[in-house]
Amino acid sequence: MEKGRLLYEGKAKQLFETDDENILFVSYKDSATAFNGEKKEDIDGKGILNNKITTILFEQLKSKGIESHFVEQISDNEQLVRKVDIIPLEVVVRNIAAGSLSKRLGIKEGTPLKHTIVEFYYKDDELGDPLLTNAHIELLALATPEEIETLQTKALEINQVLQPIFKEIGVTLIDFKLEFGKTANGEILLADEISPDTCRLWDDKTNNKLDKDVFRRNLGSLTEVYEIILSRLGGLSK
Amino acid sequence: MEKGRLLYEGKAKQLFETDDENILFVSYKDSATAFNGEKKEDIDGKGILNNKITTILFEQLKSKGIESHFVEQISDNEQLVRKVDIIPLEVVVRNIAAGSLSKRLGIKEGTPLKHTIVEFYYKDDELGDPLLTNAHIELLALATPEEIETLQTKALEINQVLQPIFKEIGVTLIDFKLEFGKTANGEILLADEISPDTCRLWDDKTNNKLDKDVFRRNLGSLTEVYEIILSRLGGLSK
Ligand SMILES: Nc1ncnc2c1ncn2[C@@H]1O[C@H](COP(=O)(O)OP(=O)(O)OP(=O)(O)O)[C@@H](O)[C@H]1O
Ligand SMILES: Nc1ncnc2c1ncn2[C@@H]1O[C@H](COP(=O)(O)OP(=O)(O)OP(=O)(O)O)[C@@H](O)[C@H]1O
Ligand SMILES: [Mg+2]
Ligand SMILES: [Mg+2]
Repeated sequence: MEKGRLLYEGKAKQLFETDDENILFVSYKDSATAFNGEKKEDIDGKGILNNKITTILFEQLKSKGIESHFVEQISDNEQLVRKVDIIPLEVVVRNIAAGSLSKRLGIKEGTPLKHTIVEFYYKDDELGDPLLTNAHIELLALATPEEIETLQTKALEINQVLQPIFKEIGVTLIDFKLEFGKTANGEILLADEISPDTCRLWDDKTNNKLDKDVFRRNLGSLTEVYEIILSRLGGLSK
Repeated sequence: MEKGRLLYEGKAKQLFETDDENILFVSYKDSATAFNGEKKEDIDGKGILNNKITTILFEQLKSKGIESHFVEQISDNEQLVRKVDIIPLEVVVRNIAAGSLSKRLGIKEGTPLKHTIVEFYYKDDELGDPLLTNAHIELLALATPEEIETLQTKALEINQVLQPIFKEIGVTLIDFKLEFGKTANGEILLADEISPDTCRLWDDKTNNKLDKDVFRRNLGSLTEVYEIILSRLGGLSK
């Protein structure tokens, strides 16, 4: 597969065209950003780690019947994915209170939630990715009520698969962010990435954070904890 | 009716016990506050204006079949109301984009919304009255899904009555905030106040703001515009 024109460069990935108009080439970058880009650093090896972790997780999801845009890993930091029209919503699943939920609602970090909840944020850097209610989503015509329902159902199904995957490697899946897109035939498909950049992962024994909060809160070496995740997922040799 | 012990003092009103345990004495204060109490001023006559405007609006709602906590006006700045357990939600109805909705979603102030929307905010000064999704409301056990539905339905019914009342006096009801409470027998009842403190009201001819934004944004005399509203509602002689 040829790597074509650079289509889009985000904070964490570059997307390139390929000779198949339905397939994109994703290159994972070494840059880490937080707080809507305010904090920024280049971290050697981060792209490789996220590419490999995302690959493993999308493959495991597929083996459990959950489709995604993932096609195949091409190199250490590159993968092929199906091209979709990204729905501009960050779909956040929360099992345990942390981060903005804790701040917003005054719930201490680490408090298990009575029910897993799904939140939607508007993917809009200028507006600071604001939290949206269903009414806002319909108002902005970002998704229909049926699509909101589909996104919510898929997100909870993905949580049901991811939770035991992490539990088996001694990690609690606190919360995570998903992006979905629409394929040419209108199907809603899981896209983007699932990595320590987009999940909160706490070690069950030490309670240590094994995710981007290490970078956000200056808790140590990001690659060290991402390597722990990759290694426990059995991906160090890949 | 005896005015008893001061039960609670808020930013805009004092609540007193009466000799009937189900009835409270509300005294409207002359203080204006905005931005969660950061901006504050004493404004002579404001209490009287809000007491009279709220009285007229609750009476008009009642004549259209919508019950509220309102019992009767007692003096220029005092009224009797039924005591309720306030549900700690600010129920906001929006017909036209303004204020925090415009900021949050990047919709220019004055843009009519395709559909009227209802939002819920957590009545919690320490947290800064954050926007809540239905999932948050259930998580915090602030209301059941059925109660959320009831609040939403009642809020939209009230909007249907208030819109033409203001339209008749040359004013557009941009948005407004309601509070509801539960009576001793569990009934959900409209409570608190409906006044230019809690509504956005724009003059149809001049587009002038006839509400608390005059105070929030330093646009002129608050009492002058509140008096315009009271006068047009036919309440100057009361
Ligand atoms: N299969 C796909 N087809 C098309 N676009 C995709 C696909 N998967 C992910 N994307 C998009 O690729 C972009 C690049 O990813 P990256 O993570 O670098 O972006 P970001 O900086 O986090 O956020 P932003 O979306 O604001 O650019 C994102 O906008 C993401 O939504
Ligand atoms: N019928 C009622 N029974 C009991 N409490 C009521 C009733 N109607 C209104 N209240 C409450 O009276 C309080 C005083 O009103 P006021 O507008 O001064 O409060 P506030 O400063 O705006 O906000 P806060 O609610 O944070 O004190 C409010 O908390 C309101 O919820
Ligand atoms: Mg991203
Ligand atoms: Mg009030």
